[in-house]
Amino acid sequence: MQTYNVAIVGASGAVGAKILDKLIERSFPIRSIKLLASSRSAGTVIQAAGRLFTIEEAKPESFQDIDFAFFSAGGAISEVLAPEAIRRGAAVIDNTSAFRMDANVPLVVPEVNPQALRNHRGLIANPNCSTIQMVAALNPVKEAYGLERIIVSTYQAVSGAGADAILELKSQSRQFDSRAGNTAAQLPTAGSERHYPIAFNVIPQIDVFDSKGYTKEEWKMINETKKILADESISVSATCVRLPVVTGHSESVYIEIGQDGVSAEQLRRKIAEAKGIIVQDDPAKQEYPMPLAAENQDAVFVGRIRKDPDHPRGFHLWIVADNLLKGAALNSVQIAEKLIEDGIHSRNDN
Amino acid sequence: MQTYNVAIVGASGAVGAKILDKLIERSFPIRSIKLLASSRSAGTVIQAAGRLFTIEEAKPESFQDIDFAFFSAGGAISEVLAPEAIRRGAAVIDNTSAFRMDANVPLVVPEVNPQALRNHRGLIANPNCSTIQMVAALNPVKEAYGLERIIVSTYQAVSGAGADAILELKSQSRQFDSRAGNTAAQLPTAGSERHYPIAFNVIPQIDVFDSKGYTKEEWKMINETKKILADESISVSATCVRLPVVTGHSESVYIEIGQDGVSAEQLRRKIAEAKGIIVQDDPAKQEYPMPLAAENQDAVFVGRIRKDPDHPRGFHLWIVADNLLKGAALNSVQIAEKLIEDGIHSRNDN
Repeated sequence: MQTYNVAIVGASGAVGAKILDKLIERSFPIRSIKLLASSRSAGTVIQAAGRLFTIEEAKPESFQDIDFAFFSAGGAISEVLAPEAIRRGAAVIDNTSAFRMDANVPLVVPEVNPQALRNHRGLIANPNCSTIQMVAALNPVKEAYGLERIIVSTYQAVSGAGADAILELKSQSRQFDSRAGNTAAQLPTAGSERHYPIAFNVIPQIDVFDSKGYTKEEWKMINETKKILADESISVSATCVRLPVVTGHSESVYIEIGQDGVSAEQLRRKIAEAKGIIVQDDPAKQEYPMPLAAENQDAVFVGRIRKDPDHPRGFHLWIVADNLLKGAALNSVQIAEKLIEDGIHSRNDN
Repeated sequence: MQTYNVAIVGASGAVGAKILDKLIERSFPIRSIKLLASSRSAGTVIQAAGRLFTIEEAKPESFQDIDFAFFSAGGAISEVLAPEAIRRGAAVIDNTSAFRMDANVPLVVPEVNPQALRNHRGLIANPNCSTIQMVAALNPVKEAYGLERIIVSTYQAVSGAGADAILELKSQSRQFDSRAGNTAAQLPTAGSERHYPIAFNVIPQIDVFDSKGYTKEEWKMINETKKILADESISVSATCVRLPVVTGHSESVYIEIGQDGVSAEQLRRKIAEAKGIIVQDDPAKQEYPMPLAAENQDAVFVGRIRKDPDHPRGFHLWIVADNLLKGAALNSVQIAEKLIEDGIHSRNDN
């Protein structure tokens, strides 16, 4: 069996660690593995699958002989080092937003648009976490009945904002009685002008605002969804909201499909047939997806599937997934697996 | 000045206590006040505004000479005792869902449909908490531009499920590392077959399900909105979700208005002019409503007002209010105040 030299850039972060876990758990054909991060984290030792790994500083020459380079260290690092990795022959799978909307860069959820990998030029972008789980659940609907409109309101976990945001939620959660006085330094983003407590609160801002009053996170959901589904005509709008949940993004999604006369049961069946999806939808038994139950799970969970009371082509769904796994690390590893399966992991192959 | 004999049924509960607070704070013209509850709570002493009140057992004869009776002790109690209070000449303001959809019972948000009070027969229903804040924010839009469609996803606090649910959130919140193992007995409802932890979780069920897959809470939002806005033609759909927030319901609301060419700024101005509403909507300054900031506030807070990217008459809003105040106690007291102002507090007056 052919094996590969793998590098993870951002190995000291939450997603980087999960990429390493998933590579090992899924028996990715590894010849060698190199953990890379900023000079600040160099020397840190990480344990995975009973082995110890030492993090090295990421430099252009780190990518010599690397076949697959997973990037998850922020857009600025990807912009500088991804081209260096590609130049040295690596297939880069980038989990930042740096290249996602670049027309020359495939933006891929393997269950949804694997065909987009065909023309890659050495770099494949991993979509935004909230977008991945939504398109994974909606693509089988689109294929069966068409999809004209999406209105999504998200319920997003703090782990999407990094390890310090998780620690802040943990410490604030102990201050129940004095909750309004909790100090905050991490959310909406560490770099924000103003910070708000997240424990016992809801913050309707993820990432920064544009002049139209939408956040970058909302535009990511809008634009990435159209790109992945390869259909600019789908109407998409989003409201992205942060909650006191550690891991697991939830989404309340309204859709209008392309056909009349479809039942919720038909929709449920089509979604349940799709790869990587688990339908949890039995109201009588109180079965529906919840983030606390989805933590550390690979699947995208879908429930509360029901017809709109008024619109003949309108349906509502509730979609939950682990934002660090299918929303990030797992999807990145699946992209690499698909490149190998299709024999197109190197630029020279396609 | 004329003064009135007032009774509060359910005085030992969270909303009952807030009704007492609001009556005193707003200088309601009280001659006497009687706190009533089940025999279990009889004898309990409550402090408000520096005075001590002893709770008595609620019986039919408790309502002799009562002018205003506020009910907030569950639908079953209202069904039995509200008719007794009305028979004795009281104006009943009922905060349960027992009579809300009765065609003979006005369902009132005083800023929205005060005219519905005109033909009351002794009983006025206070709407569901989630509904009140939404119609308060949307009515000025409807009056200015028409309103054709509402799609709402809620982010609801545990205080709506009662004092025991608050205590459960408090105790679960200390178990951060072992959060998936938290025991639960209060949510989705105390009487549910299955219970789920609420700390660090999201539960997409409030109240019980019907055969179409909607919960009672969702139908309340759908049906009560149409009744209060006196327009059955408005399309309304709802997804109601419980979060680890103590007090303060948030709502992500999509609307379609009746006119083209309206800007977000025009909508913002119309909403800001309405009574009881505070617009907090300056993304550049990170100003938007949040439940932790709305706790103990009387107003309905509205922000994130923006046009849908695709629909010419579509807008998104983020609406937050204290579910125990404007969502319950405050609105009930405002109904009583309006009855006095209009001189129609007794059945014999109208």
